Amino acid sequence: MDVEKAFHMTGGVGETSYARNSSLQKKASDVVKHITIETIQQLYLTTTPRSLGIADLGCSSGPNTLSFIKDIFDAVEGTSSQTLLPAPEFRVYLNDLPTNDFNTIFKALPDFYKELRKGSNGRPSIFIAGFPGSFYGRLFPDNCLHFIYSSYGLHWLSQVPPALYDEQGRSINKGNIYISKSSPPSVSELYLRQFQEDFALFLRSRSEELIEGGRMVLILLGRRGPDHADRGNTFFWELLSRSLAILVSWGEVEEEKLHSYAVNFYAPTKEEIEEEVRREGSFELDRVEMFEIEKDGADDMSYGTQVARTVRAIQESMISLHFGEGIADSLFENYGRLVDEEMAKEDIRPITFLLVLRKSMI
Amino acid sequence: MDVEKAFHMTGGVGETSYARNSSLQKKASDVVKHITIETIQQLYLTTTPRSLGIADLGCSSGPNTLSFIKDIFDAVEGTSSQTLLPAPEFRVYLNDLPTNDFNTIFKALPDFYKELRKGSNGRPSIFIAGFPGSFYGRLFPDNCLHFIYSSYGLHWLSQVPPALYDEQGRSINKGNIYISKSSPPSVSELYLRQFQEDFALFLRSRSEELIEGGRMVLILLGRRGPDHADRGNTFFWELLSRSLAILVSWGEVEEEKLHSYAVNFYAPTKEEIEEEVRREGSFELDRVEMFEIEKDGADDMSYGTQVARTVRAIQESMISLHFGEGIADSLFENYGRLVDEEMAKEDIRPITFLLVLRKSMI
Repeated sequence: MDVEKAFHMTGGVGETSYARNSSLQKKASDVVKHITIETIQQLYLTTTPRSLGIADLGCSSGPNTLSFIKDIFDAVEGTSSQTLLPAPEFRVYLNDLPTNDFNTIFKALPDFYKELRKGSNGRPSIFIAGFPGSFYGRLFPDNCLHFIYSSYGLHWLSQVPPALYDEQGRSINKGNIYISKSSPPSVSELYLRQFQEDFALFLRSRSEELIEGGRMVLILLGRRGPDHADRGNTFFWELLSRSLAILVSWGEVEEEKLHSYAVNFYAPTKEEIEEEVRREGSFELDRVEMFEIEKDGADDMSYGTQVARTVRAIQESMISLHFGEGIADSLFENYGRLVDEEMAKEDIRPITFLLVLRKSMI
Repeated sequence: MDVEKAFHMTGGVGETSYARNSSLQKKASDVVKHITIETIQQLYLTTTPRSLGIADLGCSSGPNTLSFIKDIFDAVEGTSSQTLLPAPEFRVYLNDLPTNDFNTIFKALPDFYKELRKGSNGRPSIFIAGFPGSFYGRLFPDNCLHFIYSSYGLHWLSQVPPALYDEQGRSINKGNIYISKSSPPSVSELYLRQFQEDFALFLRSRSEELIEGGRMVLILLGRRGPDHADRGNTFFWELLSRSLAILVSWGEVEEEKLHSYAVNFYAPTKEEIEEEVRREGSFELDRVEMFEIEKDGADDMSYGTQVARTVRAIQESMISLHFGEGIADSLFENYGRLVDEEMAKEDIRPITFLLVLRKSMI
């Protein structure tokens, strides 16, 4: 399965779209927003560029995309007016895979520009562009960026580790779509190696695009300790495997299909991240924070339903491609119910890491 | 009507899409392709930039968009290998209004990158981005571009001249949607003034974005002589007015609606263009070519049908917004028939101008 050509958050603004089902990601980014803001302010004060280059990698489509730009813009404008430094020209580069719904973001831009202009005196110089492509590889010209941000993108691998499949295309992790307690040990090993390879390529590519001293704020899911089947991060995939197994038992999904499905996901530990940053060598890791997302349900739906909608907006493109259209409704209904049932028994919270990296001086 | 939020070529790849109905524009651009190629080669040889910035304004969506990039890329790569100069990094900025279908272009990029890499040895450094917005205003950072191209975009005005409407919102050009023989003289005057204002703003904006000595190749519809109602360019709009009038007579369109419709279009003369370039002052006009498009029908349809499909792919967004969805099928069926009938009587060919401009040294 070609991740670059298939994987995308659900586009548009409909009921199952990512735009309407990404409040959990927003909540999490908001928890650490002050760190993002601090980092960009510091960077701005130490470099005072005439033209500030900023990229959002895995921007997806929806309110979170523009709200990130607004936050950065306000922070820099605020700092520049306090310090009487001239406000820079802003270059904002939005990136996601080529199947992402950029049209919906672009349509919102005329009103967004108006809003930005209302806030500041006169006409701020801001240029927003879409750069489609995989962030596992080069996206932008040499040395053109000051600040790179990526929220909930980097736990997605460039591909399912190819060695996970045998010659018949069946997964050696039978019945599981991600690492679980019943997975053979080689499965975690393969996932870890794919993460290491991808993350190193990510760091190398970004170091070529950032100016010296440039910063990155990366937010991604991770796990607490060395156990690969740590409940905090495997739990949601286990339940998705079980929901798929229910559809197999109902005859709605072929068993064969389930046995050849796997997710391009990996939740690293702090140590795995640190080791890769050290090994690749282009960046200093200025800061690592670990936090849990509070789980207060939305106004009108259970936490399980909210999670099911979020996971659906993220996974539907891949699931439809593999299992065919039309199973999503019953799949995610089962899934929401299972999440509620499990959560009633045990309080499970996914772990998120926030990393602040600085491009090393050569 | 807010042109920036409404006007776009029909997106996607369906039967009525611009992607499948833009072969007339392609044919015309091809006639003068050698001039575009020569201009970029010359520019490259005189400036030999490490990073070459190129923009396509009004790129729309479809095969023409990528074929332009391929042509430019091949021309520069060819020149660099002949002259043993190092090949530059390519920055390609695609622009159109925010309602343009960028998603369809972006989805084609992974295969397009593969094709480019096959041709050249190793991995060419090319970064393609979408910059949505109106070209009547700034689109790109200061001094970041070497070459700007725009094909069949600049005869579209930023708006219908506002003074064309009376206080009741009825057009003073009643029954005509563009300048025609029966239009009051003030109508041509209003259109000309809107063109002058728009074109000056276009030139000023581009001059801030281009490096000194940077070039533009602009291809746009125009007219032969001072008569504003010259058949060569008003003909297609007259027939569209008549097609709308037929729908009024059938009771399918309210007369009121027709009397408040007008197109944001203007076909200037060579002199009007030259005067505005001189007055604005940032550019030297290196070259002006006038040419006619040969009209050989497509394999399986009449010329009228081909024109009707082309005009539909361009105008449907505005027509649907003004007259409501659902009239397009019968409107463009009538239109194709009228074009065939008129063409049988008289051979009418629209005039196209190609301009090569060079940013003046200060």
